[in-house]
Amino acid sequence: MDARTILAKKRDRLELSIDEIDFLIRSYVAGDVPDYQMAAFLMAVYLNGMTPAETFALTSRMIASGRRAHFDNLGRPAVDKHSTGGVGDKISLILAPLAAVCGAAVPMMSGRSLEHSGGTLDKLEAIPGYRTDLSLEEFQRQVAEIGVAITGQTAEMVPADKKLYALRDATATVASIPLVTGSILSKKTAEGIEALVLDVKVGSGAFFKSAESARGLARSLLTVADKLGLSAVALLTDMSQPLGRAVGNWVEVEESIDVLRGRGPADVVELTLELTARMLTLTGLVSDVVSARRQAAKCLHDGSAWQKFLEMVRAQGGETSVLEDPRRYPEPRHRLEVKAPRSGFVRWVDALGVGVAALELGAGRKQIGDAVDPLAGVRLLKVAGEAVQAGEPVAVLQTSQKKDSLTVAERMVSTAYAFGDHPPDPRKLILGEMRPGN
Amino acid sequence: MDARTILAKKRDRLELSIDEIDFLIRSYVAGDVPDYQMAAFLMAVYLNGMTPAETFALTSRMIASGRRAHFDNLGRPAVDKHSTGGVGDKISLILAPLAAVCGAAVPMMSGRSLEHSGGTLDKLEAIPGYRTDLSLEEFQRQVAEIGVAITGQTAEMVPADKKLYALRDATATVASIPLVTGSILSKKTAEGIEALVLDVKVGSGAFFKSAESARGLARSLLTVADKLGLSAVALLTDMSQPLGRAVGNWVEVEESIDVLRGRGPADVVELTLELTARMLTLTGLVSDVVSARRQAAKCLHDGSAWQKFLEMVRAQGGETSVLEDPRRYPEPRHRLEVKAPRSGFVRWVDALGVGVAALELGAGRKQIGDAVDPLAGVRLLKVAGEAVQAGEPVAVLQTSQKKDSLTVAERMVSTAYAFGDHPPDPRKLILGEMRPGN
Repeated sequence: MDARTILAKKRDRLELSIDEIDFLIRSYVAGDVPDYQMAAFLMAVYLNGMTPAETFALTSRMIASGRRAHFDNLGRPAVDKHSTGGVGDKISLILAPLAAVCGAAVPMMSGRSLEHSGGTLDKLEAIPGYRTDLSLEEFQRQVAEIGVAITGQTAEMVPADKKLYALRDATATVASIPLVTGSILSKKTAEGIEALVLDVKVGSGAFFKSAESARGLARSLLTVADKLGLSAVALLTDMSQPLGRAVGNWVEVEESIDVLRGRGPADVVELTLELTARMLTLTGLVSDVVSARRQAAKCLHDGSAWQKFLEMVRAQGGETSVLEDPRRYPEPRHRLEVKAPRSGFVRWVDALGVGVAALELGAGRKQIGDAVDPLAGVRLLKVAGEAVQAGEPVAVLQTSQKKDSLTVAERMVSTAYAFGDHPPDPRKLILGEMRPGN
Repeated sequence: MDARTILAKKRDRLELSIDEIDFLIRSYVAGDVPDYQMAAFLMAVYLNGMTPAETFALTSRMIASGRRAHFDNLGRPAVDKHSTGGVGDKISLILAPLAAVCGAAVPMMSGRSLEHSGGTLDKLEAIPGYRTDLSLEEFQRQVAEIGVAITGQTAEMVPADKKLYALRDATATVASIPLVTGSILSKKTAEGIEALVLDVKVGSGAFFKSAESARGLARSLLTVADKLGLSAVALLTDMSQPLGRAVGNWVEVEESIDVLRGRGPADVVELTLELTARMLTLTGLVSDVVSARRQAAKCLHDGSAWQKFLEMVRAQGGETSVLEDPRRYPEPRHRLEVKAPRSGFVRWVDALGVGVAALELGAGRKQIGDAVDPLAGVRLLKVAGEAVQAGEPVAVLQTSQKKDSLTVAERMVSTAYAFGDHPPDPRKLILGEMRPGN
């Protein structure tokens, strides 16, 4: 078996065997297949696709490239949620402790921001002292003890994904459904979970922007999850406008605190409850979605999820005083208001425009490895449906490190807003639900 | 401008600008774009193709990556022939000195064998002492003095092609029409020629096996040659059966000597005269193909081409005594006869089967850099149309270094032969002629 023959088969649209995919990924991780052969393979996969059997083989081999967490004797089911990424998506910060207080174990390994899309780890790292580098043993122990942990992947888990992702990033082969499927499900399976709720975003701020491609991704994820023995369900959710009113790192932690304390934007609350409810039903903790949603809402309003969040932050070395009193957190050095050009109603706030503005301000990274500014971001004072007066501020831009970016970010955010004489139809947040085989 | 954006455009089937192709190739040769990005680009080109304008930009940039020969003040036109490669194709050894005695300058830079396809340099290196590593200055001087040289490319000419070819070989992206076009025409243009005759092979022993793909390659070569200001014509010729009766290195030199001395197989003579005649008409040395063919035939039969061949070999350090008396050449250590399984007529000898057998015997290389055995090869005692008796030898296999290969080669050559009760229709060697724009 040799890499060139496998490459030629994929190039010619022939289906690869499990053995061939095993050989290729194993040899690549071992360094026996060079980057340039894998790069040509990735482009062939991008253009010619993979069958579900091939994608399953790829994912399985990626999982086998490293260690896995195990949560077999916890007495509570291990379950996670994965979002395909968006703008203002701070759901994980709220949902993880919430699902934990509802009886689940939530061993969540998250990622960092890239381009316009935010990253849970960057948000949590805005909390002074918060560690995202738990060892596998620390991670397992914390989940066993308090039911939840949100950390980064350790180097020993799914090394194949790290190596492949860096290469995909350099070779314009990131947005491939089978490669995305392999990347997501290898990392999630290695967490040791038995069930997974997928939040597949649709719209300008999403990775796959059209409903058709998002459905294709959801279908691939569900099919392969099923082959891996993972219970899964996918919600297709709207990412054409940002989630909530805060886009950035610390600003999103603040908004998460609001929601955890029983306040916060309705869309963030709604999506959190819908996703948490699926985690509870998928694992059999609650028998139906209506009851599960009710239970989750109760734990959000009675403060138990908030206490669990503080417990998690404390367990991971974070300072909770700034969470309990966010006014103690440093202020950004530079602020700029974006003003309404006319009176009327906000009809639309484009997710991509706001996401790219936050990126320019320093909240995200253009390339893997860039540093982020915890204070950078965009606060949306007005969102779709709200009335404005001409000259009234609709958003606030903030940054500590990139004062020069305020001008370009202001133009982006101005362009992202659309105004009209009447309020728009209400936003539909949940666009669909998909299960394996349907 | 960055490589990833260019990659993404080609991936998405958008046409690249001249500047983008320039940037990519220039940066790759300079080492600023890594192999893995170029590998992904090559696969995208393989699968999505290139427009003629893109292929022209690629070829131009490849030429500009190195030095070029110049033959401006010779008083005779510089012209070359390129074959897309086949089995038993020793035409260059005869045609180059022949065209030179007919008044052309022939600055021929040739290649080596790869897989089942023979290489002119390997054949010439079977002549003791023959140098295929002339410097650019030696090459230009020899062509000016005696009108002909056949050598390898120097390291300073078209370095982009060397680097790209090695990467294509490793990434299963060799057989791409735009990439082949760029490779051939960059090397030929760098020779400093004004006209080029293309011998585009069709059939099992060819690189592009179907008439349709061979025509596509010829069309691409002619279109880009025209944009480069190179006069060109293409003959589509049959490579479903080997050319002549000898396949290997020294055995092909021997057969070339036969033809140069006015004997030799009719198909080799015919193709040599057809191609040489196009070299003479394309450069205006002779006004029409019929006269040109007649003049070339005269120079083949009066011994002047043979004398020019000896002069070229001498100029390049080769020993001519073995050419004048081939019996003085060493004998192969191992021989095996392949016998006719029945009486009747040879109806067919498959080019690919014989080519792969010669490769197994050591005449060719499976990978770039392998050594070749000058004595290895296949002599066809019987070819299509000839009568045989059961048990009579139809071919002789020979090797000096790979005795073990005789058994597998025998099976391959046996399978390559087809027999019948009647002789087949005569072989049609020249399948078509194509010019730019038609």
